[in-house]
Amino acid sequence: MNIQNRRWQSIWLDDGECSVSVIDQTKLPYLFTTRSLKNCHEVVEAIQSMVVRGAPLIGVAGSFGLMLALQADPSDKALSNAFVALHAARPTAVNLFWALDRIRRLVTPLPFLDRAEAAKKEAILIANEDISMCEAIGNYGMKILQDLANAKTSKGQEEPLRVLTHCNAGWLATVDWGTALAPIYKAHRAGLNLHVWVDETRPLNQGASLTAYELACEGIPHTVIVDNAGGHLMQQGQVDAVIVGTDRTTKHGDVCNKIGTYLKALAAKDNGVPFFVALPSSTIDWSINDALSEIPIEVRSPIEVTHLKGLLKKTTNNLEEALIQVVPDGSPAFNPAFDITPARLVTALITDRGIVAANEAGLKTLTT
Amino acid sequence: MNIQNRRWQSIWLDDGECSVSVIDQTKLPYLFTTRSLKNCHEVVEAIQSMVVRGAPLIGVAGSFGLMLALQADPSDKALSNAFVALHAARPTAVNLFWALDRIRRLVTPLPFLDRAEAAKKEAILIANEDISMCEAIGNYGMKILQDLANAKTSKGQEEPLRVLTHCNAGWLATVDWGTALAPIYKAHRAGLNLHVWVDETRPLNQGASLTAYELACEGIPHTVIVDNAGGHLMQQGQVDAVIVGTDRTTKHGDVCNKIGTYLKALAAKDNGVPFFVALPSSTIDWSINDALSEIPIEVRSPIEVTHLKGLLKKTTNNLEEALIQVVPDGSPAFNPAFDITPARLVTALITDRGIVAANEAGLKTLTT
Repeated sequence: MNIQNRRWQSIWLDDGECSVSVIDQTKLPYLFTTRSLKNCHEVVEAIQSMVVRGAPLIGVAGSFGLMLALQADPSDKALSNAFVALHAARPTAVNLFWALDRIRRLVTPLPFLDRAEAAKKEAILIANEDISMCEAIGNYGMKILQDLANAKTSKGQEEPLRVLTHCNAGWLATVDWGTALAPIYKAHRAGLNLHVWVDETRPLNQGASLTAYELACEGIPHTVIVDNAGGHLMQQGQVDAVIVGTDRTTKHGDVCNKIGTYLKALAAKDNGVPFFVALPSSTIDWSINDALSEIPIEVRSPIEVTHLKGLLKKTTNNLEEALIQVVPDGSPAFNPAFDITPARLVTALITDRGIVAANEAGLKTLTT
Repeated sequence: MNIQNRRWQSIWLDDGECSVSVIDQTKLPYLFTTRSLKNCHEVVEAIQSMVVRGAPLIGVAGSFGLMLALQADPSDKALSNAFVALHAARPTAVNLFWALDRIRRLVTPLPFLDRAEAAKKEAILIANEDISMCEAIGNYGMKILQDLANAKTSKGQEEPLRVLTHCNAGWLATVDWGTALAPIYKAHRAGLNLHVWVDETRPLNQGASLTAYELACEGIPHTVIVDNAGGHLMQQGQVDAVIVGTDRTTKHGDVCNKIGTYLKALAAKDNGVPFFVALPSSTIDWSINDALSEIPIEVRSPIEVTHLKGLLKKTTNNLEEALIQVVPDGSPAFNPAFDITPARLVTALITDRGIVAANEAGLKTLTT
């Protein structure tokens, strides 16, 4: 994607192929800096400190971490140590484990001398697969947005197509394009007149910071709103479609995504606004029958509710940040991180293998 | 209400009756301090600087402001100047104008020597009327909460009655008791086992600050959540009822309240959770036919979305606060302050004259 009119990915192999570089996401949205990771240990630190974040990106970063470890020492012991260290950097990230395991299985039978090169090729392949998948989601989703825009035009409505999104399912969480934002990027580049409503997405404000930053970089008109405002905008006819990502999608089409998604889905239904969920078809969880009772919802630290980090002052190459308290000492807080949007509220799922209904019949067409 | 086990109102006439005191709400929830206002000018400043806030409280403060002005100079010119200055302190507050006008109409025909005393009595009357009205809302609403709690007990459910509220419709906005929180205070004092979910209520966070503070002072168990979390809690059966206030209620029972109320009403409906709105019966707007098209929604400064004020550090008698930026420079924000909850989502209206259905037939019973 574009930052200051230059094309970037969120991670790339440096010239010389003995280090990888990433965008330092801890400094976003206020400062754009990149960081070169020269060994496995630096990759571990980058994952732990959230310099890289987002499930697909962490998987790719982990793959390159194994490559760097094997370049330094291709022995079984070094491989095993690196695997353990990288996996421990974010132990709950399923995608990280999957990517590390894929590299390990590939290189384990190989002679020591071939391992680093094989890991490099596989890491590049994993990164490219992610890009292709996101791009496919973008192409299918773009078609939906174009159809909605055409329907507006045929009714004589001349304002831009107004899309609301929640949280950040953009390219910073992947290698390029993103999931929920990919259709928006594709449509914008195809010349569609778009405007995006960006939910700030408390408590961590990934919408106000990362999604807003991505859209500004691409030059896509957008406006940040508090999470409370989306229902009002839909009532007032100011939203033509909602697109969000998903952390987990059941075979019935129920969607587990960032807390607050369900409220926007209810408002979309109540106002006849189509509600789309974008996802890689590989991430469907076929094992869940009842989403509400079977998907454990992560409860995160209450400090994310009671305190907020933000920018106090920015100088050329530095940020002065502050953590402020917004809830009085005597009041506890509770911080569930996800909610379930039932399939009945989902207009369609946008996947890399096509657009399908949010139900078992629809999802099964993706597996054939 | 109680603060540190002592009974307080949000405003009171000092001994000597030549000044009024208020709780300085700009320092809440981190520091409890009171301020004595010795003349009309200081009342104007207190209203302008949000030392006092909340429609009913501002009305009462304005009344005492006129009293102080007339104590200093009971002439027609002084009365007129004070009226203009107080009204200009918050020109959009209908309640302020109503209270000022009530005092002015009363004292204008009186001899100069009697004016200050008459204004004092009327200001005290206005304050006491507000307390009685809120207390009546509390008593009617308490009955609902007791019935809900009894229904839980009869099903063998032993956990507390869990009530969710949005924004602050508590006693700090009135003279005592509040509106939406009055039933909760009454029920708690009557011994009901309660727990309150407090929506933080972005952008100004009146829930996280004022509602949480009030509940903590009264010793009522409560937990602050982000505005995104309420739907999830209802899906998980963690909410037994919702009670909110209202800024404007139409004859059809449509409710205009703080932005985000509509989303909680949708979630309540979707999960079979009763949704109550508390209001003084005097505030019903009989002139509005179509709430969505006829009620103008105030759009406030985008800086309330892009920046947040909070506590950096607290010393014994002082607060160090900081304003942090949470949206990058290149991204605009939009800040509508209210939304409309259609009557179809409202289980009942709790008023000082009884509990009625949210429709014209129900509301008409309040006028007979």
